[in-house]
Amino acid sequence: MAFPLKFENLIDALKRLPGIGAKSAERMAYRILDMDHETVVEMTTAILSAREDLHRCERCGHLTDDQLCSICKDKSRDLSIICVVQSPKDVFAIERGEGFRGVYHVLHGAISPVNGIGPNDLSIEPLIQRIQEGGVREIILATNPNVEGETTALYLAKILERLNIVTSRLAYGLSVGASLDYTDDFTLMKAIQGRKKMNG
Amino acid sequence: MAFPLKFENLIDALKRLPGIGAKSAERMAYRILDMDHETVVEMTTAILSAREDLHRCERCGHLTDDQLCSICKDKSRDLSIICVVQSPKDVFAIERGEGFRGVYHVLHGAISPVNGIGPNDLSIEPLIQRIQEGGVREIILATNPNVEGETTALYLAKILERLNIVTSRLAYGLSVGASLDYTDDFTLMKAIQGRKKMNG
Repeated sequence: MAFPLKFENLIDALKRLPGIGAKSAERMAYRILDMDHETVVEMTTAILSAREDLHRCERCGHLTDDQLCSICKDKSRDLSIICVVQSPKDVFAIERGEGFRGVYHVLHGAISPVNGIGPNDLSIEPLIQRIQEGGVREIILATNPNVEGETTALYLAKILERLNIVTSRLAYGLSVGASLDYTDDFTLMKAIQGRKKMNG
Repeated sequence: MAFPLKFENLIDALKRLPGIGAKSAERMAYRILDMDHETVVEMTTAILSAREDLHRCERCGHLTDDQLCSICKDKSRDLSIICVVQSPKDVFAIERGEGFRGVYHVLHGAISPVNGIGPNDLSIEPLIQRIQEGGVREIILATNPNVEGETTALYLAKILERLNIVTSRLAYGLSVGASLDYTDDFTLMKAIQGRKKMNG
């Protein structure tokens, strides 16, 4: 026997969420039917209003429900250092560390010929404009440490060289708390190449 | 830095779904922001309308958007055998096998003193009414093979004895395709006790 149509629709809708297969969607659907009416309305309102009201910050491309994001609005931020990341997730990740006081630029993707994503699909032009407006001293390329992220960083580094801007890349190395024998060979090699002097 | 408020609300709403922690909710939230507007409206409509329009079948308690569920409406079903289950999930599970042609009765729970659920919290009275209306020959107690399910089955069996109805319980035994050495001791013991003659 098939599920009632509306139950089937509910499962199909939930399966569109990442990591949710048929079985998890079914479990979620039963839970939703058990929720009281207000909770369900609250949930759907939260989904809709997030989708409607959250958009890209006009300056840096980060997630905001305003014209500028909270970081671009923060007067204590150092506007001379821009950290370039692939997505808003990465901004939140770096902000959790609370050590970076510069601003961001979100590319919204990385160069990936396999997936048909070229430089023109990324928010690179607005970054160049920001630099040309002046006051920028350094660009930190904080794209992901994988093929797409590296390609994007190399591409940007070439452009930035022409603009005469200090460009840096995140360090490769060991994770804090990791153990050597569980670290993959490439990372270990990078950690050795990037070793730091401990005395003078 | 905290997330924008609406993003935070979205994550909180998604965390109410079963098996969804902070990290999965965050991943889902990003996906929802990337969906096009129609998809999000479709999703929230599916959630709301399932919650609003699906309810219990008036006769058996199964899930339906009508007065009676599709099984109670099906004229080819054998009304003399009622299979008693804990939840609509179990109806769908048994129906997947396509071997049972009787009808169902959904208790909506099982007796569980630990969780404060007693017989009065279950749909037992409507089951007795259905039996007293006549035409019922056998009740199959298909509650779960765990403490709550067993307690519920024993409780019902006692009531049904007074009503002079044939009562049966699902068989315990090996899973099809299982191997003996991975089967737990209790199940193996039950399988030996419930052994069937292969000749005569």
